[in-house]
Amino acid sequence: MRTGERPSGRSVATAARGGGRSARVVAQVLRATAEQLGRVGYVALRVEDVAQNAGVNKTTIYRRWPTKADLVSATLRREGEACEGAPDTGSVREDLLIMLRRLVDHGRSPMVRVMMPEMTHPEVRAIANGLKHNFESEWVSVVARGVGRGELPAGTSPLLVTEIVTSAVIRRLIRGEEMPDEAFCESVVDLVLAGSVALAARRPRAKTG
Amino acid sequence: MRTGERPSGRSVATAARGGGRSARVVAQVLRATAEQLGRVGYVALRVEDVAQNAGVNKTTIYRRWPTKADLVSATLRREGEACEGAPDTGSVREDLLIMLRRLVDHGRSPMVRVMMPEMTHPEVRAIANGLKHNFESEWVSVVARGVGRGELPAGTSPLLVTEIVTSAVIRRLIRGEEMPDEAFCESVVDLVLAGSVALAARRPRAKTG
Repeated sequence: MRTGERPSGRSVATAARGGGRSARVVAQVLRATAEQLGRVGYVALRVEDVAQNAGVNKTTIYRRWPTKADLVSATLRREGEACEGAPDTGSVREDLLIMLRRLVDHGRSPMVRVMMPEMTHPEVRAIANGLKHNFESEWVSVVARGVGRGELPAGTSPLLVTEIVTSAVIRRLIRGEEMPDEAFCESVVDLVLAGSVALAARRPRAKTG
Repeated sequence: MRTGERPSGRSVATAARGGGRSARVVAQVLRATAEQLGRVGYVALRVEDVAQNAGVNKTTIYRRWPTKADLVSATLRREGEACEGAPDTGSVREDLLIMLRRLVDHGRSPMVRVMMPEMTHPEVRAIANGLKHNFESEWVSVVARGVGRGELPAGTSPLLVTEIVTSAVIRRLIRGEEMPDEAFCESVVDLVLAGSVALAARRPRAKTG
């Protein structure tokens, strides 16, 4: 039973939206996992401890998330929801700033700070790579909308803009350094936007006859 | 006793410049350490293996580098010499590109690729932090010279330019991703330089009366 569900046997996602007992259990377990990750990280995380803190049976967890990697992946997805949903304010500068601030906030959470140095662990890296595509595609869509509105020139590479705007924060994050302040975020976004516009002005324009 | 040296009491540095036996031993040991780092990384590195590969006694190594961290730090400094010495071509774009290409080349070496994921190890991180200042100061000096020549506007922050230009490469490096190609390096440098100029044009100019 999957999407387009029938009356009985609701999927986890439906239950989560409905807020039933199942959704409560999911929320409790993922919250407990996030807390535990913030305390001990991925490598030392024990499903037993999560079960105890969430007040559920270990088997309840294993039934839904057969491996520790599954459980942590679901937790990061849930916690990452605060970072998700590309904004659409009508201004590419505003949208990029909103996303960069979210990334900075996310990088200040205990869970992320404890887990980041564990990026070298193959399972952690696999989990992170699984989330990376979603993350990137939202940034790319924001930049692409800016191009569509004519705020950015037609030749702009959304992926390049994304990489340059996010890398300074992600580099600090991975290295466990302090997250940048608002002024830094604005400087980076403004510099990249201004640079994109200025570079395009130098290129021979394709549309001019 | 080789070129231009005094009969007795030469320092290691003098010997290194002069190319005497002491310098040869240093070179052999550091080379063997670099090779071993590229094979097994920092954590698994054993001074015994380095000694054997370099054809010297373990005590010869310990006399000069009392700890594994000392030995590896010296090796990274030596290997990093290829990345050192800020260029001064008279063009900030050329200088930045030379340094970015060096960083990319450096990031392709087996030693760096094996060690980067170990950045989370406290000793590796301490070694890297010890080298970071040198690295940053050369980038900053190149950008500052560009400002001095008027290629970049007076309000430019050399540290910000450094961070934005280097972060995309360093982020890939830390995450063990592929190093970018020449086109990517040029795009980043051009975008940051064009952005710096364009942003300054928007600021009220301090020197105008």
